[in-house]
Amino acid sequence: MTRTSHPISAVAASLNIPDDALLRYGHDKAKVDLDWLSSRPENDSKLVLVTAMSPTPAGEGKTTTSIGLADGLRRIGEEAVLALREPSMGPVFGMKGGATGGGKALLVPETDINLHFTGDFAAIAEANNLLVALVDNHIHHGNELGIDPRAVGLRRAIDVNDRTLRTIITSLGGRANGVVRETGFDITAASQIMAVLCLAESPDDLKDRLARIVIGDRFDGGEATVADLGVQGSLTAILASALAPNLVQTLEGTPAFVHGGPFANIAHGCNSIIATRAALATGTIAITEAGFGADLGAEKFIDIKCRQSGLRPDLSVVVATVRALKYHGGVPLAELAEENVDALRAGIVNLVRHVENLQGVFGQSVLVALNEFATDTEVEIEAVKQALAPLGVHAVTSSHFANGGEGATDLARAVLEELKTPSRTTFCYPDEAGLQEKALNVATRVYRAGGVTWTASAKKEILRLEERGYGHLPVCIAKSQYSFASEKMLGAPTGHTLPIREVRLSAGAGFVVLIAGSIMTMPGLSKRPAALDIDVVDGEIVGLH
Amino acid sequence: MTRTSHPISAVAASLNIPDDALLRYGHDKAKVDLDWLSSRPENDSKLVLVTAMSPTPAGEGKTTTSIGLADGLRRIGEEAVLALREPSMGPVFGMKGGATGGGKALLVPETDINLHFTGDFAAIAEANNLLVALVDNHIHHGNELGIDPRAVGLRRAIDVNDRTLRTIITSLGGRANGVVRETGFDITAASQIMAVLCLAESPDDLKDRLARIVIGDRFDGGEATVADLGVQGSLTAILASALAPNLVQTLEGTPAFVHGGPFANIAHGCNSIIATRAALATGTIAITEAGFGADLGAEKFIDIKCRQSGLRPDLSVVVATVRALKYHGGVPLAELAEENVDALRAGIVNLVRHVENLQGVFGQSVLVALNEFATDTEVEIEAVKQALAPLGVHAVTSSHFANGGEGATDLARAVLEELKTPSRTTFCYPDEAGLQEKALNVATRVYRAGGVTWTASAKKEILRLEERGYGHLPVCIAKSQYSFASEKMLGAPTGHTLPIREVRLSAGAGFVVLIAGSIMTMPGLSKRPAALDIDVVDGEIVGLH
Repeated sequence: MTRTSHPISAVAASLNIPDDALLRYGHDKAKVDLDWLSSRPENDSKLVLVTAMSPTPAGEGKTTTSIGLADGLRRIGEEAVLALREPSMGPVFGMKGGATGGGKALLVPETDINLHFTGDFAAIAEANNLLVALVDNHIHHGNELGIDPRAVGLRRAIDVNDRTLRTIITSLGGRANGVVRETGFDITAASQIMAVLCLAESPDDLKDRLARIVIGDRFDGGEATVADLGVQGSLTAILASALAPNLVQTLEGTPAFVHGGPFANIAHGCNSIIATRAALATGTIAITEAGFGADLGAEKFIDIKCRQSGLRPDLSVVVATVRALKYHGGVPLAELAEENVDALRAGIVNLVRHVENLQGVFGQSVLVALNEFATDTEVEIEAVKQALAPLGVHAVTSSHFANGGEGATDLARAVLEELKTPSRTTFCYPDEAGLQEKALNVATRVYRAGGVTWTASAKKEILRLEERGYGHLPVCIAKSQYSFASEKMLGAPTGHTLPIREVRLSAGAGFVVLIAGSIMTMPGLSKRPAALDIDVVDGEIVGLH
Repeated sequence: MTRTSHPISAVAASLNIPDDALLRYGHDKAKVDLDWLSSRPENDSKLVLVTAMSPTPAGEGKTTTSIGLADGLRRIGEEAVLALREPSMGPVFGMKGGATGGGKALLVPETDINLHFTGDFAAIAEANNLLVALVDNHIHHGNELGIDPRAVGLRRAIDVNDRTLRTIITSLGGRANGVVRETGFDITAASQIMAVLCLAESPDDLKDRLARIVIGDRFDGGEATVADLGVQGSLTAILASALAPNLVQTLEGTPAFVHGGPFANIAHGCNSIIATRAALATGTIAITEAGFGADLGAEKFIDIKCRQSGLRPDLSVVVATVRALKYHGGVPLAELAEENVDALRAGIVNLVRHVENLQGVFGQSVLVALNEFATDTEVEIEAVKQALAPLGVHAVTSSHFANGGEGATDLARAVLEELKTPSRTTFCYPDEAGLQEKALNVATRVYRAGGVTWTASAKKEILRLEERGYGHLPVCIAKSQYSFASEKMLGAPTGHTLPIREVRLSAGAGFVVLIAGSIMTMPGLSKRPAALDIDVVDGEIVGLH
């Protein structure tokens, strides 16, 4: 059910956004005009990245902590503004439900944000799928560019968890239906165009990035790009509205720019650069998040988003829970409510590893936010604090889920304290390293793997991309979110191997995707998907959570 | 380029729509609250259906005439309100360009309406594709309902002209990807869910219709429905916002409800019942249109939309042009600018046939609107008037394209005159007729075919549907728009055959689709699609027309 909130015009007014720069979508959502945003002067706002330990089925609450922290900062007089990611409808109807926080740490209007929102995902899928249709159409109508239909690198996109579309054969049914190809769909959030939109700095940059997208190989050995096809203008037109960031609010009225897609496992997983800059331009502290554990979310945030944009986090907040630490210590899900300090001490290696990485590899000032559950005990919380003390890192409990911003004021004060010694962000690898070396750097320094293996086809593709001049790009590793490893290994494994099975160039996004282990860029639905529980009753949408 | 217009709040205020019933989408688009609309009292507003002769490459201007007529009625003091269809992005990037009228008879904001608009098409595709994913997922996870994967009647939907998706094989790549099936995509406007949305009277009716959708056959000989799967609630949630009608305006500020999909060739091709009722509830004359020639648009408007809703047009306006009449008389496209009364007299049989059908089969009062071109001559226009006189039908010229509403005041006055003797609408066939008999009625009475042929599989399916109790439904014939026949035959052919090759049940929409000739429910792109000419320059989208 959508909760009451202030009119979005009041939220915008609190940020000094003039009425004619506000494109309202109903009473409580809006887009903010890009021209107005780009005319904002530079300021010295602080950027706080919220990331997390490796996720568990117990739930850690990274989004609720981001929201609670922003609400808490507002409570103590800071002008905090959120920059968060838009939910995908795939998981909404799949396993997970909505992605707008929960309890009293909530984005509103939650139902609208979870369903369609302002149409950004639909625009991204439309641009993506028109592009692939134009490519197939070009091949069908004489193929002037000489594109090899066996080597089209683009896939279609849809915002549905649909395993059946992972690998398909198209153009059956005769000559009128085009040239038969094996291809497939990814979920929209994992599409290259999602990353292009998230990493674009402006409409012109968007068009340039779209033009650079590589369609695939040509028979003459070269590559065909969107610029060769001449359709970057149409794709930009389709995405023009979607590029403007969306403004909503928390239950407590804290402004939130919610823009760009999720899934740091199979995508780069950050909200848009434009939204992060909008939060920085309109507030004094911008709170942003990067998905799943810091091995995925923070690594990609820093090595891709920060590298490309020049943005630098002043502080990284790592979200952890006592329950998740016990889970990493081997406690089954059903027993997480019981005090178990030994298991917690065993599982805390996961949190410590993430903290060490953020400090050592990425040069971050780090604070740990312990998202409180009613079953946490004093002894357990103290054990966490003790374990982090040798790293010089504080752990602060926060009860925003139960108490809203009032429950997060301790965390907010600790964040202000840490911001006095801001991060000096460093990357995991330099631009100049080769693509294989970059993968090895992330694998050994962040995942603490013993090494990287490549399938023959992946190895061949990497070498080819380097020959073609893409060696300078950062890598975007797709792997399981549940572990530092590519398969589920609790705690802080070492010596495992990162097995890379597939390589995809995202020249428009400006990175090379390396797919490791058995991760899929199109999720499936479970046997009992959430879609069975969602309904509309008396005009209200129910069951989304 | 989007032209200047009044704020949509001013347009809404002119219709006495209160501010809290208006969900704005930016400055110049809005949705109108369904609760407020359903609380409107009945009134005695008039309904005018704009339809046309068989279309030609010369362009007849059905949408511009609808818009011009509404603007013209406003000029002479009538409270006209438009109820039109939303453009599909398929043709926008394909052959046709936008679908918001042209010249001075234009809907604004034209670019927004042509691209995404308020997200209705995206919501329809999302609901459609989630449904098919849930079906495939059910089959994959044990198939409790016993759905025969060889007999799933639902197809996926996408708002792109993409011939390669007409026939595909899904779930390749191994067990994790589901059960291999042959299936395909239709363009969103031709999907059953588009028709369900357009024909739904309320959110409850929408859910009931979604529940009735037949997924396909079960191994036990029965059929599986959405209700069996239990996901009508989720689909209703996805469509909840889309069901509210969109309000925009013409260049002259005439209110226009633009809601529901086009394509009277491959779909039922009418705007939503909710939008038509909204126009009737807020104005004194509602102007609506039904796509392509009256053989498709008006037939489906009356036999499907009117039959289901109880709506009845008081007048049918048939749009024709001197150029199109000459084209039907055999003049090549390049020579249409030259006066040629003989060819016009030869081609006018097409217009006369449509008028006769509207009068004789559908009981309509008819007025012909001659959409003026600069090359039309007095002699040609007089010849049209003379040819229609024996039918008791007036032809009125209108120059709305060049002159806006001021150019359509003669037409507007003629409409008011004709409304004094309103239609007494009749159907082409009764509910009780069998499905084959219904097809034969439309074929012989409207298309003037000699008969209907059925492929063996189509015949078998028709008999099966009658056995299953769907014989009472109306038929929705998909065929070429360019002729009364299923292939391109100019003028007014007789004795041809309507060859039905495929039958699809749309139990939720409440009709049976009969696909005739070589028409496709997924269009393709031409060798040089419009996508090559669309661009964003200095922040403005150009090339959409």
